[in-house]
Amino acid sequence: MREAVIKALLVDPSNNSPVVLLKDRYSSKAVPIWIGDAEAMSIAFGLQSDRFPRPLTHDLMKTLIDDLKGSVEKVVIGDVQDGTYYASIFLKDEDGEVYEIDARPSDSLALALRLESPIYVAEKVFESSAIESPFVEEDDFQEFVEYDMNLGEFRRRIG
Amino acid sequence: MREAVIKALLVDPSNNSPVVLLKDRYSSKAVPIWIGDAEAMSIAFGLQSDRFPRPLTHDLMKTLIDDLKGSVEKVVIGDVQDGTYYASIFLKDEDGEVYEIDARPSDSLALALRLESPIYVAEKVFESSAIESPFVEEDDFQEFVEYDMNLGEFRRRIG
Repeated sequence: MREAVIKALLVDPSNNSPVVLLKDRYSSKAVPIWIGDAEAMSIAFGLQSDRFPRPLTHDLMKTLIDDLKGSVEKVVIGDVQDGTYYASIFLKDEDGEVYEIDARPSDSLALALRLESPIYVAEKVFESSAIESPFVEEDDFQEFVEYDMNLGEFRRRIG
Repeated sequence: MREAVIKALLVDPSNNSPVVLLKDRYSSKAVPIWIGDAEAMSIAFGLQSDRFPRPLTHDLMKTLIDDLKGSVEKVVIGDVQDGTYYASIFLKDEDGEVYEIDARPSDSLALALRLESPIYVAEKVFESSAIESPFVEEDDFQEFVEYDMNLGEFRRRIG
């Protein structure tokens, strides 16, 4: 299991699909995960800690969890099959009981950002999907919006 | 306050935007609310009680609430200002305490469908936005996908 950080949110120019780049905290490798537009917007707002004028879906989800005295212990990108990534949210209730909930990576990451929960990538996912991260320096992250990466190339490499 | 049902999910041909039609349970009037694509898909799956292969965001939200022993007492479309509708989700915790949570109508409705919570529209919203529902008979609902309504006309009437 590798602890990961959301390193960048990019757009794959080959199909205009958003991609989130999940970087291993302790190496230069990263796992790119293709996500939907709405989830990308939600992750972008989570990253910027800007507030959308109205509560986005994952802001609402955070409020629901907070009001019910729950917390998210961690999220894990646990599997990848036929190009579909599978995640689990480890939800803890007030009494400390933990529930592992099947979720899509995009929801898991959008929620983890808002609840400041740690993100992990299972070793088998990492081995099958990790690429060399184009963001070696922490500061590069700030420039992710401008970064002109060829994600079509990424996809071919991990395909 | 009027109890409402989600009567139809349609596409406004003037801008391809999805519209949910919220009908007064006890009259022939309905309030149309324009929503985003992702929320429309989520509401469509909620209406059909089909399962998407992976949990959609609002399926995940339901699981989070269920695991934390919460419930949704009701959702209320409580206000409309400059064409933006405001909703509240009344979340009840295990001890019976109720939290009123600010939310967008699309999230509120997608969640209400999955938790079978009642939906209400405040009188002032109803008065400013309600139109004559094109679906008079219950059975018409089944045909909503084919229904070729001119929602541009709707928008002009409520504008």
